[in-house]
Amino acid sequence: MQEKLQALLDDYDLPQARRLNFVFQMVIVVSLLVISLETLPDISPKTRLFLYWAEVVIVGMFTLEYIARIYAAPKKLGFIFSFWGLVDLLAILPIYLLIFGIDYNLLVLRTLRLMKLARIIRFVRFNKSFRRLSLALDIAKQDFVLAIMATCLIQFIASVGIYQFENPVQPDKFSSVFASLWWALATLTTVGYGDVYPITLGGKIFTGLILMTGLGVVALPAGIFASALTEAREIEERMSHDTEK
Amino acid sequence: MQEKLQALLDDYDLPQARRLNFVFQMVIVVSLLVISLETLPDISPKTRLFLYWAEVVIVGMFTLEYIARIYAAPKKLGFIFSFWGLVDLLAILPIYLLIFGIDYNLLVLRTLRLMKLARIIRFVRFNKSFRRLSLALDIAKQDFVLAIMATCLIQFIASVGIYQFENPVQPDKFSSVFASLWWALATLTTVGYGDVYPITLGGKIFTGLILMTGLGVVALPAGIFASALTEAREIEERMSHDTEK
Amino acid sequence: MQEKLQALLDDYDLPQARRLNFVFQMVIVVSLLVISLETLPDISPKTRLFLYWAEVVIVGMFTLEYIARIYAAPKKLGFIFSFWGLVDLLAILPIYLLIFGIDYNLLVLRTLRLMKLARIIRFVRFNKSFRRLSLALDIAKQDFVLAIMATCLIQFIASVGIYQFENPVQPDKFSSVFASLWWALATLTTVGYGDVYPITLGGKIFTGLILMTGLGVVALPAGIFASALTEAREIEERMSHDTEK
Amino acid sequence: MQEKLQALLDDYDLPQARRLNFVFQMVIVVSLLVISLETLPDISPKTRLFLYWAEVVIVGMFTLEYIARIYAAPKKLGFIFSFWGLVDLLAILPIYLLIFGIDYNLLVLRTLRLMKLARIIRFVRFNKSFRRLSLALDIAKQDFVLAIMATCLIQFIASVGIYQFENPVQPDKFSSVFASLWWALATLTTVGYGDVYPITLGGKIFTGLILMTGLGVVALPAGIFASALTEAREIEERMSHDTEK
Repeated sequence: MQEKLQALLDDYDLPQARRLNFVFQMVIVVSLLVISLETLPDISPKTRLFLYWAEVVIVGMFTLEYIARIYAAPKKLGFIFSFWGLVDLLAILPIYLLIFGIDYNLLVLRTLRLMKLARIIRFVRFNKSFRRLSLALDIAKQDFVLAIMATCLIQFIASVGIYQFENPVQPDKFSSVFASLWWALATLTTVGYGDVYPITLGGKIFTGLILMTGLGVVALPAGIFASALTEAREIEERMSHDTEK
Repeated sequence: MQEKLQALLDDYDLPQARRLNFVFQMVIVVSLLVISLETLPDISPKTRLFLYWAEVVIVGMFTLEYIARIYAAPKKLGFIFSFWGLVDLLAILPIYLLIFGIDYNLLVLRTLRLMKLARIIRFVRFNKSFRRLSLALDIAKQDFVLAIMATCLIQFIASVGIYQFENPVQPDKFSSVFASLWWALATLTTVGYGDVYPITLGGKIFTGLILMTGLGVVALPAGIFASALTEAREIEERMSHDTEK
Repeated sequence: MQEKLQALLDDYDLPQARRLNFVFQMVIVVSLLVISLETLPDISPKTRLFLYWAEVVIVGMFTLEYIARIYAAPKKLGFIFSFWGLVDLLAILPIYLLIFGIDYNLLVLRTLRLMKLARIIRFVRFNKSFRRLSLALDIAKQDFVLAIMATCLIQFIASVGIYQFENPVQPDKFSSVFASLWWALATLTTVGYGDVYPITLGGKIFTGLILMTGLGVVALPAGIFASALTEAREIEERMSHDTEK
Repeated sequence: MQEKLQALLDDYDLPQARRLNFVFQMVIVVSLLVISLETLPDISPKTRLFLYWAEVVIVGMFTLEYIARIYAAPKKLGFIFSFWGLVDLLAILPIYLLIFGIDYNLLVLRTLRLMKLARIIRFVRFNKSFRRLSLALDIAKQDFVLAIMATCLIQFIASVGIYQFENPVQPDKFSSVFASLWWALATLTTVGYGDVYPITLGGKIFTGLILMTGLGVVALPAGIFASALTEAREIEERMSHDTEK
């Protein structure tokens, strides 16, 4: 029976296992919706009670799933301390801490609730296309790190530069290099909220120069990923070729 | 005569058919313009009357086309219930509902009018380049779904995170996770309207971390499509090679 | 002597021709700067006089160049009515119209001045890298047209959709489908000025759906160009291979 | 001993050299943090004193490194006047100018401090992935120059065009072609701060046309880089193939 349960939980060739997994995934989505709904400021006590019980039912289901997975695992401890075992545990822990009245403050609890999001990783655990994208990300790993470093570097240069130009004129908005960093972030990612922007001629020309360079740096990740994905496809083709032989 | 009509409507090797199709397409564009002009708030009754009669003439032309297409089709019912048959019907239905006084409310009518836009799909029905892009989209279909899922996931994480930081300080703008989702959407797509943005130090640092990751996720579709289009070109070349032999 | 002049003007293997061309290009840049400086609202009459004489000198130089090119051309009329001959003529015509007092209004003159910008095309007339990029653009021509059509289509759908949601609440900002089109443009290009944005729940959800699709459409040109440039490089390599043999 | 020191400083096959280099890099990061912290407007005199002494210690360490590198170099003058020798000197010079009381004004000092950032280039001096990206940038060098020229050209056209439309209505915001250039920069990079935007119908339509073209130009760098990186990978593979033989 243990083997049957394991197959039902993890063997994605079985139609029943796929169906069960789909149900699990829907429960996770509903659970995320419940958490979000709880933050609405103007909900009635009745709705709040309903959301509370929905949460209890969901955590109950996750607990059952967790117990089933432990029971089904050939090596119980191995599963508990595996990555997915810990993710399963973290998904139910905050509520049990709450129920059993363990000492906590609200903010910490909220932060723990954030970890519930990790549940969604299960969605893509066994997906085929997910593996190709993962391979591409793995090929381009180092390149991405360099691109992020280049982005950080150019943002820091932008912050120091704009501080020189704008601080004397807008001391409240460009109060320090750190405040300027907020501007650099919004500008070089091209978000451009419009809460801070240069008004001096020098600052505007500097922004122009930084953006001309920055556009290229922002273009790096797309280029890196396109090139890595092309290589990942070629590796896939070669592997399916080898399998055919 | 039925066969001649069918050739005139669908056989794009015939110059007359191409010319007729071009006229149909122009009528669709004019029709979309008429619908748009009707929404202008300060048009004179005279212009409104002109637009009304333009609409009547256009719908008349579409009706003639619809009847001609039914007449020309070898299997009449097959055409009526095909995708393009339904699109043709939907393009004229709202106005006939209006004329024959069938019970409706204004909002539903408006929404039905939106479906008229589907007419434009005809523009690209038989285009060669359209087929290559379609092939690329088809190759990358699953990858796009994953990229959209990754975008949704990161936006949800961004929403929950920013809610923790900004809700205590800006309870009106970040009132719930759903309100924060609007911020996450405008930020991660780099639209950045500037109606909501973080003001706390924690919120700004969190935005920076999310954007560093988000830039990569936003870069995914461009990379996926570039890679798929390169493969689509190769498949095309191989096929034209095979045809030559 | 005519042949020598022609070589001096067009034969880019000659060092003198390259140097002369560089001087021409610098004059064009200075000329564009002069035009821009003339628009500054608070310049002294002295500076304005200086700019006027700078313009006269520049147009004089362009006139000399134009005459030299006509003289050097083997087929004079062929040059005058060629694309570059007309560009050269348009670069000097507005000023002569002004000098010889031909009837004009200021706005038309201003618009004619805009055409001066076409001079800059000469910059890249004989550049090697320019030819590769041109080849890539030529390969992807049809794909770009389709991408632009897709962009126009999605912007129109976005305009009609947001009009339904926002017009009842913000009748001044989303007054018609055309006013909504301005919002759609700023949103789907991710510029996001922040002068118009949805405030209703429906409008925000619709924006989210449109942006999820729009991100992909905005990613199309980058993907198309990357794929075309890869092919252009391959064609180049094959051609240089063939030349070696 | 000189050779040992050289190996310790530059031979990245040695574990000790790698560890020492990591320490150097951390010191640079801390130093950049110290510079940034000094710009905070509301720090106590005590903290300011601490930051001053941190700066002294860091500059001391850089001085030691500089002396060690000169001592270790086989050709002392060759190192001093090499690129990295000058970068090392510039990293410590401003502070010594300050300490020895050489005549300067504050703004020049600040600008010199900016050059300290060049220290960070050392981070990536010997990185493998950095070499691949450098190769790709080298391959696409000319293409990037053309893309930047195309961007400058389209921004200038955009500026002149929008000036015609918006100057009569918003003479304060679009006061000259140069003021319009600021709008063109924010718009075509899709930053869109929202401090300046067109309000006339003509200006809005012109913005639409410019953005439709501009989207393609903004997409150029991503496409160029993706294509160059694919070629760089192929070159790498061919070279590692040749090495195997």
